[in-house]
Amino acid sequence: MEPIDLAVTALHGSVGDPALNSMNFLNEVAQHYPDAVSLAAGRPYEEFFDSALLHTHLDRFRRHLAEEVGLDRAGVDRTLLQYGRTKGVVHHLIARHLAVDEGLTVDPESIVVTVGCQEAMFLVLRALRAGPADVLFAVAPTYVGLTGAARLVDLPVRPVAGGPDGVDLEDLRAGLRRARAEGLRPRGCYVMPDFANPSGVSMDTAQRRRLLDLAAEEDLLLIEDNPYGLFPADGTARRPTLKALDTARRVVYLGSFAKTVLPGARVGYVVADQRVGEADGAVVPLADHLAKIKSMVTVNTSPISQAVIGGALLAHDCSLVAANTRERAAYARNLRHLVDGLARRFPAGGPVSWTVPAGGFFVVVSVPFAVDDALLHRSAREYGVLWTPMAHFYDAGTPVNALRLSVSAVTPESIDLGLDRLAALVTDTMSEDVTPECQGSATVRVS
Amino acid sequence: MEPIDLAVTALHGSVGDPALNSMNFLNEVAQHYPDAVSLAAGRPYEEFFDSALLHTHLDRFRRHLAEEVGLDRAGVDRTLLQYGRTKGVVHHLIARHLAVDEGLTVDPESIVVTVGCQEAMFLVLRALRAGPADVLFAVAPTYVGLTGAARLVDLPVRPVAGGPDGVDLEDLRAGLRRARAEGLRPRGCYVMPDFANPSGVSMDTAQRRRLLDLAAEEDLLLIEDNPYGLFPADGTARRPTLKALDTARRVVYLGSFAKTVLPGARVGYVVADQRVGEADGAVVPLADHLAKIKSMVTVNTSPISQAVIGGALLAHDCSLVAANTRERAAYARNLRHLVDGLARRFPAGGPVSWTVPAGGFFVVVSVPFAVDDALLHRSAREYGVLWTPMAHFYDAGTPVNALRLSVSAVTPESIDLGLDRLAALVTDTMSEDVTPECQGSATVRVS
Repeated sequence: MEPIDLAVTALHGSVGDPALNSMNFLNEVAQHYPDAVSLAAGRPYEEFFDSALLHTHLDRFRRHLAEEVGLDRAGVDRTLLQYGRTKGVVHHLIARHLAVDEGLTVDPESIVVTVGCQEAMFLVLRALRAGPADVLFAVAPTYVGLTGAARLVDLPVRPVAGGPDGVDLEDLRAGLRRARAEGLRPRGCYVMPDFANPSGVSMDTAQRRRLLDLAAEEDLLLIEDNPYGLFPADGTARRPTLKALDTARRVVYLGSFAKTVLPGARVGYVVADQRVGEADGAVVPLADHLAKIKSMVTVNTSPISQAVIGGALLAHDCSLVAANTRERAAYARNLRHLVDGLARRFPAGGPVSWTVPAGGFFVVVSVPFAVDDALLHRSAREYGVLWTPMAHFYDAGTPVNALRLSVSAVTPESIDLGLDRLAALVTDTMSEDVTPECQGSATVRVS
Repeated sequence: MEPIDLAVTALHGSVGDPALNSMNFLNEVAQHYPDAVSLAAGRPYEEFFDSALLHTHLDRFRRHLAEEVGLDRAGVDRTLLQYGRTKGVVHHLIARHLAVDEGLTVDPESIVVTVGCQEAMFLVLRALRAGPADVLFAVAPTYVGLTGAARLVDLPVRPVAGGPDGVDLEDLRAGLRRARAEGLRPRGCYVMPDFANPSGVSMDTAQRRRLLDLAAEEDLLLIEDNPYGLFPADGTARRPTLKALDTARRVVYLGSFAKTVLPGARVGYVVADQRVGEADGAVVPLADHLAKIKSMVTVNTSPISQAVIGGALLAHDCSLVAANTRERAAYARNLRHLVDGLARRFPAGGPVSWTVPAGGFFVVVSVPFAVDDALLHRSAREYGVLWTPMAHFYDAGTPVNALRLSVSAVTPESIDLGLDRLAALVTDTMSEDVTPECQGSATVRVS
């Protein structure tokens, strides 16, 4: 037998961390049961995918560089093929998109185009984590990519209760004060105000203003992640982003094109207009420091990928609302179909309840038993349906009595099939469940 | 005046680090003097760039997925556009390239496709840096991207003398023992055995074997970076990589397509076949842990970018030696032209000397005065020629009496012009230089 070269304990602690293993585990389960109906994946809808469109996007961006930016042929080729600007080459188009779709005026120089929103998250956390007293806050349940990125820079994440309003402000305030009393330095609070992953909960506009007020009072940076904001359910009006309401540069805004254009480009961005005072008295946007860090992580985001996104933006005058007409309708239809389907299968007032989010991809189903990885395995193997245990979104890792369903990568038909199977699993588990009280509890409320 | 939101001292120390500011500074100088001849940039040759080729590459990879991998149309679209395998989708082609061009047999499962070689470097250092006693060794002068990535994970880098053989083994051995005596844990040694950046020095095959022997004796991991190996000067035979000579999984191999295909794809990779023993007794390749870390940095490398590289690989049966016939000739011609040009402008045995590398992009010129950033500014402004102060590749940051010239992104004509200007700068500086002895010294020897 071949010897061992390295013990896992000799590697950085993150590689053994539940947050990093969580995605791996969920992907592996999905791979092991390829025929199971997946209500687990938060991937975008594939029905409209067409890789031939890559050519159209690329060519449109090349024409833009030639005709609007004024580059000659060598300049166009250099922009797409050579090393390039660390902060990116579609920053001006992203600024236009934010103006058109979000009513948000940002200086393109405060934007860093990143390798997906994940890199944006990582850069922000790397910049903010300066020492062992630093701590981050995040609304719980929390997107596992945030927790994982924090682990990579040894930044502890303290949960803030989410509750029905998207963030429990009193809990946040108490947590900040407790941390400071312990000698810790809160570096920011991570929030997803629109159709959060995984809770599905949104903050209303008044709550957003209250959160900004609290941030000002407590001198707190807010890290706003907004991957789902363009996907309200039918008839639901979109709300202003925190960043659009932010008049004091309290908000670092994270953007993604994974759901609004396509994940395969791996293009996201961060708006970081915070003014950083340098040792020599100069003032630069936080974006410049994030770019320096980026230069040592990925150098720059592939300009080919950026060109694909740039071309897609240009196709609709930088409006992703306009570009996503079909997708918005599909997600809204699926969400309605899932919620209606749950109501048909589980009696109102019974032991099974669920959220009815105002948009986005995710519905949380609360059940009267603990939902752990073993149950997911059983669900996949015996019932042929995949979903995500809510425990993966809590740091403690203890089972909670809830699971997340996603409506993004399915059809109404597969939703029906998946819900039939889920209902069978729930019924069987409830009839087997003899423990009078279940371990853990999830307080998941309707948005 | 607008207030300051954050002090730079509240951010992670890396943002103020010379290694991270170095690239920024050099880029800024280049931007300020766009008309200067650049013998500074290590970018690949642009003459053969043609962004229309992107379509050819993409389509070839799509056909490969359909015809050789056997995917249906939806499968092809999903592979290119959807979230994908963390370790990448061109790993099998990279394994073929390594077999064809390097005589290297690697398990595709030990490969992680990364966002440029920079991300590969970052992932390896993040995995290896487990605690404050950890330290990395690197042959000095050192590529600044390595130093910068180490800063991001708070991993100190100790220099190892390079010398004429590429690495001074006695210095390395002494450094390892000294570190251990101090209670530190050496995690590896970073080397660039072929035409190193910036020294241009290569290790001969016997030296490579001696380095591997030392690694075995000292239980040391070697991190081999090989961006320039395909570009020997005329008539120079290529040598086996360390990884090809490695029989005991001592070498983590970093690969780049930036110079052999194109930088804009931002695709690199790492071969990490080290066997890691898990807490539960399982054994996985180090690549799997790197992939977990990657999932929290960039999720996966853009499959669109990977498709561009995959298509380029497929065009020449995965041989980049074959694909780079024109480029190899251009770089060899430029290197010869630069070395000949230096000989014509500076007398043999005089105060100015230079390396004559066996390949690659870089020549180091030693001069009898300190070369600092101020001199580079003056060179750009008054003489119209850019180069890189060697001080940027040493950790101490003190000026050394040497500068790096690059032959990769220029023509013979611009080399002539650049050298004329450099000669004028050197002559003027020498005649002005009244200090009897110059600060610092660079021992840069011919490879």
